[in-house]
Amino acid sequence: MPPAPGDREARRKDVSEAVWRVLADKGFGGLTLRAVATAMGVSTGMLMHYFPTKRALVTHALDLLEKDTAQRPRRAHPEPGLATVRAMLLDILPLTPDDTARNRIWVSSWDLSLADDALAAEQAGRYARLRSTMRPHLEAARDAGELPATADPEQLAATAVAFTHGLVVQALFDPDRFPLDVQTAMVDSFLASLARRQDPSDD
Amino acid sequence: MPPAPGDREARRKDVSEAVWRVLADKGFGGLTLRAVATAMGVSTGMLMHYFPTKRALVTHALDLLEKDTAQRPRRAHPEPGLATVRAMLLDILPLTPDDTARNRIWVSSWDLSLADDALAAEQAGRYARLRSTMRPHLEAARDAGELPATADPEQLAATAVAFTHGLVVQALFDPDRFPLDVQTAMVDSFLASLARRQDPSDD
Repeated sequence: MPPAPGDREARRKDVSEAVWRVLADKGFGGLTLRAVATAMGVSTGMLMHYFPTKRALVTHALDLLEKDTAQRPRRAHPEPGLATVRAMLLDILPLTPDDTARNRIWVSSWDLSLADDALAAEQAGRYARLRSTMRPHLEAARDAGELPATADPEQLAATAVAFTHGLVVQALFDPDRFPLDVQTAMVDSFLASLARRQDPSDD
Repeated sequence: MPPAPGDREARRKDVSEAVWRVLADKGFGGLTLRAVATAMGVSTGMLMHYFPTKRALVTHALDLLEKDTAQRPRRAHPEPGLATVRAMLLDILPLTPDDTARNRIWVSSWDLSLADDALAAEQAGRYARLRSTMRPHLEAARDAGELPATADPEQLAATAVAFTHGLVVQALFDPDRFPLDVQTAMVDSFLASLARRQDPSDD
């Protein structure tokens, strides 16, 4: 007798949770049918009903990562301008255990994505969308006088995304050196340095 | 008859070059004995004389990456201060094909390193050393008035390393958006924003 639909749904959830645990612990390099089966306490054969191939498992893992990222809790966006850019940058950083796991999985996925043209293009698109979401707030900040009149919002968006993702990597490798308050202070100093007006003698 | 020492040395070099090509193309996720054997046009069995296990192959690959990084050509360090920080940041970025391959392999290695406590500690140590090398130049810049008197060299070193490594990742995924001149302009704007003096009205 086939399992009742409710059981199947519950089992799917168990599988996804096990995939996530393996990814958070061992990354994509450690994501195998055997590792997921072990994490669930089931046989590899059972798991192959869900993932007939390694490729199917990786696709499901990337899908989970997308969904988890889209559904993560985010800070409110107070008003157009630097305060919203700050909220966006803090939303990216590994400030909580959940954020740390998600970031660790993202960083791990880069090895895979760089080796696959389609995945690399998706990742480039993700960065471009992030810059596009940030740019109007940098324009608003410039127009409101929060940034120098000479500020280039497109370049600053790329710089802010670079700074934040590089901080993610440093914090993942050295969480004791980069706890929540240090990461937050770095974001605030970074934004303050962008905001500083050019000294008149430089004009 | 065993191969002459010269032959053995030449063969070792061939093996290392094949490992590098596989890493630059497919990352650590694609580094297998079979892939290296195929890149060399030899049998997997032949290659197992050099690498009896996958682990031995990975260790050799990490070793190659360290050596290539240590031996890469670097810019001269003009004088203590921001000009030297600039040279250090440009030395990290993927501005040439060789720099791009090396960075692509480093980013790929993060998946592996995050899953292994000893490798993660090595990577954290590498970032700490990079910050330590940069810090005296940020102190010199502050003391020479290139940076605001309130500048925190340790924090700025961490920010500069974060910015640069995040730019590496963006540039690897989207080389058309981040060619050499764009990366260089971003470094210059980033350093200019650090250098800007606080507006007197903010004091």
